[in-house]
Amino acid sequence: MATSLEQARELDAADPLAGFRERFAIGEDPVAYLDGNSLGRPPQATLDRLRELVEVEWSGGLIRSWSTGWAELPLRVGDLVGASVLGAAAGQTVVADSTSVNLYKALHAAAGLRGGRGELVVAQADFPTDRYLAKAVAEQRGLSVRELPGPGNGAGTEGVSADDVAAVLTESTAVVVLSHVDYRSGYLADLAGITATVHRAGALVVWDLSHSAGVVPIELDACGVDFAVGCTYKYLNAGPGAPAYVYVARRHLAAVEQPVPGWFGAEDVFAMGADYAPAPDARRMLSGTPNVLGLVAVEEGVRLVAGAGLDRLRAKACALTELAVELTDAWIVPLGGDLRTPRDPDVRGAHITVEVPDAQAVTNELIARGVVPDYRNPSMIRLGLSPLTTTFAEVWTGLDVLRAVLSKS
Amino acid sequence: MATSLEQARELDAADPLAGFRERFAIGEDPVAYLDGNSLGRPPQATLDRLRELVEVEWSGGLIRSWSTGWAELPLRVGDLVGASVLGAAAGQTVVADSTSVNLYKALHAAAGLRGGRGELVVAQADFPTDRYLAKAVAEQRGLSVRELPGPGNGAGTEGVSADDVAAVLTESTAVVVLSHVDYRSGYLADLAGITATVHRAGALVVWDLSHSAGVVPIELDACGVDFAVGCTYKYLNAGPGAPAYVYVARRHLAAVEQPVPGWFGAEDVFAMGADYAPAPDARRMLSGTPNVLGLVAVEEGVRLVAGAGLDRLRAKACALTELAVELTDAWIVPLGGDLRTPRDPDVRGAHITVEVPDAQAVTNELIARGVVPDYRNPSMIRLGLSPLTTTFAEVWTGLDVLRAVLSKS
Repeated sequence: MATSLEQARELDAADPLAGFRERFAIGEDPVAYLDGNSLGRPPQATLDRLRELVEVEWSGGLIRSWSTGWAELPLRVGDLVGASVLGAAAGQTVVADSTSVNLYKALHAAAGLRGGRGELVVAQADFPTDRYLAKAVAEQRGLSVRELPGPGNGAGTEGVSADDVAAVLTESTAVVVLSHVDYRSGYLADLAGITATVHRAGALVVWDLSHSAGVVPIELDACGVDFAVGCTYKYLNAGPGAPAYVYVARRHLAAVEQPVPGWFGAEDVFAMGADYAPAPDARRMLSGTPNVLGLVAVEEGVRLVAGAGLDRLRAKACALTELAVELTDAWIVPLGGDLRTPRDPDVRGAHITVEVPDAQAVTNELIARGVVPDYRNPSMIRLGLSPLTTTFAEVWTGLDVLRAVLSKS
Repeated sequence: MATSLEQARELDAADPLAGFRERFAIGEDPVAYLDGNSLGRPPQATLDRLRELVEVEWSGGLIRSWSTGWAELPLRVGDLVGASVLGAAAGQTVVADSTSVNLYKALHAAAGLRGGRGELVVAQADFPTDRYLAKAVAEQRGLSVRELPGPGNGAGTEGVSADDVAAVLTESTAVVVLSHVDYRSGYLADLAGITATVHRAGALVVWDLSHSAGVVPIELDACGVDFAVGCTYKYLNAGPGAPAYVYVARRHLAAVEQPVPGWFGAEDVFAMGADYAPAPDARRMLSGTPNVLGLVAVEEGVRLVAGAGLDRLRAKACALTELAVELTDAWIVPLGGDLRTPRDPDVRGAHITVEVPDAQAVTNELIARGVVPDYRNPSMIRLGLSPLTTTFAEVWTGLDVLRAVLSKS
């Protein structure tokens, strides 16, 4: 454990990914940014790329730029995300819309592939959008919703295991939707094991990778995952509300029907024919005109992740959370804090969550002192540690200031 | 009619909106950009705003910027669009997602308000996304689709009249979806008259304003429109694939259920409660995390439209299309061209369409000579005239080069 700021700085000096921090726009404030899992920092390259996009491609190329590259961006950037982050071969991933819209499309498509089965499974305490959409899609398709207990439901469990999933699967289960890393506890689910469990019951799985993409190696193809979605503004550093991705396994593509068939999902976008004929690859998940500014920002963010490599990112993420857990145990637990994240790094992502009394007030005080975490109901402080940009010194400082705030209150 | 380039330049010199052109990034190439109805030009302010967004709000503010303005952008920019472009009071418009996704939501919501009625009406030759989505939503809700003949169906009609609509309305009609300005012919539909006609039959109307917003004064509130959607990358100059808008009349808001309930549509986004409670205003049409880069680009584009004012924009749009029609009649019709746009400026938007033999090859040759129009099936050349940026000289040059190309071939 780094028991002093100097020791934390020594860890930074020895960090093989330290050089990546210089490729981001980082100022003096805040002194410790521990929310890279809500919004990653801006890559330097993104601003240059946006300027080029506006001045050259938009201003100069005008409408002609659609036929010299823009129209290919959803699949091109999707393939980059697939290859660099998701373990997905080309043609199965597009970047478009929001995670919510993509999850909606994936859930509808998955349920459509399991017609006749009447149940959709969702975790009781999964991220709100995921729960709301699971209920909405179930209602729209005449399915019933079965809730998995936990994670983070106050019952002491931090995540959903393959056994938990197996316990609710029946011959009626059509689709299971789950988060790979829980947005509160940081629990890392067994993607391979749960996918296999779901398949043994004849159902399909939709994974939300928002909190794991970029910090945990993912092998969607190798694990036989059916559908996956996730956002790009966390560890992929694509900026606030940047477009999300959706993955459809190749074996499902020909049969997939998504519910929002817009012109960019058509086989020939500009044929504009009488009837909708979907594209043969993952472009069939597209709807409206692609958001070009957002797409190039995703491309720049993912390039940095690709350059660092998932193995190194995972190793640093584990080292960062390990330090955070040790300091929490040493400093915060004695002051009434309760670690709500697994102590085993093999089953956690790149954030930790600490339950403390009056967490909202504590969060406000932390921010006032230059330490930026996230508050999450009920009474939890979440510390996100982004391996491309977060330093060990920031972790040390963040926990040190949290200790000071809790000691005072 | 301006029979020489000099006369066209005199019209530009007398144009009260001429100064606005300087507020856009415009280079030497192309010599005539006649596709501002597919992609408007970039405002100078947009690049400055994007730089500020990345360097100050994203890099400096980081996650804190969500609580100092970003979270309000969909409604704030929506209200600006509503006040400046749509004739809509505050609280009824949000900017988010794509036109396709918004149309999908609006059609579902409208059909939900007319439960028990079994028919959805769409124009046979409306924009592809509109037709595809009408069919998809009808299928998802168990409705049948009734097609309105035309516009642009080759039968000589250029648009849909109130009488055309009245002829297909029955007690079973739930929803009618129509484009205000037809994407091919430029025909300007009677929004007020058709809305009243639809309402007399007890049905609801969803207007697609993509080709009229910013060039035709629109009064959604005064006309009693139910729902409207449209894109921002045409005459609103927000950039390629920028987020779209959706309007819901205040009287419907409390009862509206949209099909993609994500966390940003919730009354309290960060409560993250067990059940979805929708926002009381148009934010209930939102789903995922708002696309901030796109939203600020919409704001900058719409500010210019607001500064010019819809009355002046409409007057200039009419003068531009009037010149284009006159030159077409004088030069292009004798060479085998056929004007497919109404000659009465009161029933057309800001683009004209000319049918010529081998229009795709002619379009390619025009682009090679520095004149950029749009090709549209079947064999049509579309000339979009954006009053903030298109000059009379560009119109003259564009038609002059078209005359030369047709004379040669």
